[in-house]
Amino acid sequence: MPQAKGEHGTMTDSSLLARAAEIAQSVLAGDLRLGARLIRDLDDQTVLAELILRQLWPHTGRAFILGVTGNPGAGKSTVVDSLIAYYRKAGKRVGVVAIDPSSPFSGGAILGDRIRMQRHALDDGVFIRSLASRGHLGGLSRSTGEIVAVLDAMGFEVVIIETVGVGQGEVDVVALADTKVVVTVPGLGDEVQAIKAGILEIADVLVVNKADREGADRTVRDLLTMLELRHVEEPHGPESPSSEVEIIRTVAVRGEGIGELAAAIARNQEKTAGLAAERRARRARRELRDALLDRCAQRVEQVLSRHADWVDQVQRREIDPYSIAERLLVELLGGTRL
Amino acid sequence: MPQAKGEHGTMTDSSLLARAAEIAQSVLAGDLRLGARLIRDLDDQTVLAELILRQLWPHTGRAFILGVTGNPGAGKSTVVDSLIAYYRKAGKRVGVVAIDPSSPFSGGAILGDRIRMQRHALDDGVFIRSLASRGHLGGLSRSTGEIVAVLDAMGFEVVIIETVGVGQGEVDVVALADTKVVVTVPGLGDEVQAIKAGILEIADVLVVNKADREGADRTVRDLLTMLELRHVEEPHGPESPSSEVEIIRTVAVRGEGIGELAAAIARNQEKTAGLAAERRARRARRELRDALLDRCAQRVEQVLSRHADWVDQVQRREIDPYSIAERLLVELLGGTRL
Repeated sequence: MPQAKGEHGTMTDSSLLARAAEIAQSVLAGDLRLGARLIRDLDDQTVLAELILRQLWPHTGRAFILGVTGNPGAGKSTVVDSLIAYYRKAGKRVGVVAIDPSSPFSGGAILGDRIRMQRHALDDGVFIRSLASRGHLGGLSRSTGEIVAVLDAMGFEVVIIETVGVGQGEVDVVALADTKVVVTVPGLGDEVQAIKAGILEIADVLVVNKADREGADRTVRDLLTMLELRHVEEPHGPESPSSEVEIIRTVAVRGEGIGELAAAIARNQEKTAGLAAERRARRARRELRDALLDRCAQRVEQVLSRHADWVDQVQRREIDPYSIAERLLVELLGGTRL
Repeated sequence: MPQAKGEHGTMTDSSLLARAAEIAQSVLAGDLRLGARLIRDLDDQTVLAELILRQLWPHTGRAFILGVTGNPGAGKSTVVDSLIAYYRKAGKRVGVVAIDPSSPFSGGAILGDRIRMQRHALDDGVFIRSLASRGHLGGLSRSTGEIVAVLDAMGFEVVIIETVGVGQGEVDVVALADTKVVVTVPGLGDEVQAIKAGILEIADVLVVNKADREGADRTVRDLLTMLELRHVEEPHGPESPSSEVEIIRTVAVRGEGIGELAAAIARNQEKTAGLAAERRARRARRELRDALLDRCAQRVEQVLSRHADWVDQVQRREIDPYSIAERLLVELLGGTRL
């Protein structure tokens, strides 16, 4: 965050620090209004927001992070909606980060989804925030990580990351969740199937939603075949071997199968509990890496602005960008050899 | 590229340079085999590949870059296939970069698409390369830019970038093409419509493929409505005002409407010819920025490896990642103030 300089701890106003500590305390105590405000401010990258985030960090790492992704149109939001209701009945507080691939003027359907989720709007135990993936190129995981950290610190026991699993950035965000749910539906075309296959490998639990539709049996069979294929190709695969992936049928609009889904999620959570610390560690490392990359990206823009002449030369094809990148890197790194 | 050190021009083996120059000459002369090899080597980030790329750069900036994106299942590959045939008949050589959101074991349908395009396999005037977006997180535009540069230098008059327009990274790659074609089909659900809206804003030409299907008229009307909405919201919008976006109906499997599509593309190319230099300049700047960011990302990984103890502290929640990022940045930048 650019304004949050103070690299040597000297530039930070102590009154700002005090204010950050005060707000952090309120957020930790569960102040929803201040939490919402903080998340907005994080997006604007204000100094204050970063100072608060620093104070919250020690209080993170307790939430169960559930990732939900799948094909467009598979009904992810409805599944998430039903899961929220389920967890609320079980007395758990639920935070949601919904990543929309929307542009400013898309709105429409996605806004509808959000509105539908707003049936929880009057429930203090539910907190839903949307994040447009647009404008977060490369910073999508950082932005998501920061919001998850805030929800985690606020004491939400379950934090759900919901995204359309078709862009690489979106898939990578979900990949580090504790349990990953991939939602699909019967009757999708071939190319869509291939994309689903692209996200299949991160699945701990597969959901065939709208399972009352024709073709549900075939979809389940297809998924089983793909899981077997995965098992053959990755015999020593990662933490969740395909043989243990459960396939659950739901009709989320009617709440059917949601109990079974929640049970499958709980089984996966228990089964992989030994790896939870490792996943938390990996998320923390990525948060650090992203914070560092983010700062580097800002410096890169500054260096490019200062060397408009070199940029011009590249644009006129007088010199190649790769040689110039090496030269600018030397300037960026101040001659240090790493 | 990590191995391609020689920051001060001293470490580069002169025989390697000579070899790079030799291969660059052959690639410029249109050697398809060496071109294919170079593109593979770029993905492996070899020193030689980067040296060759540097030599090719002055010979880039001549191709017409056509971006084709759209919904999964809209038939993009078939549209591209038909456009290739059209341009070949017009005597133009065509290069294609197809970006697949596939994982190693997805294969299936997408492989089918590639095979279908292989009807041009024996034609020296057509050169198709696939790039898996998986594994290119954040580096997708760099990788694509490099392949486009090679095809451009090889003298392909038209270079088509084809991608599924659902991830932000994929959309951004297409956004810098000279002319952007967005392909959709009748009868997609609501959520998919919203995603389409997300990529609508980059469209110069809209294609309703499979236009013999029921609902084609409605899809065209919906698109017109969205274009009007865009026009209202962005009255002083970018280079291609919505009012000038053409909507073309095609049935690409039968080649219907492809001539009209090619004509619409040509009209857009002509209409925006005055901005072509600016677009080339923006692409060159992005290539430079991406090359620099790529190098920074490598340094970030190195710094993180050297400071495993700090990473551990972040993971144990003893200190927050944002403070550590500031400290590591100082080390990364060697104390230089920018």
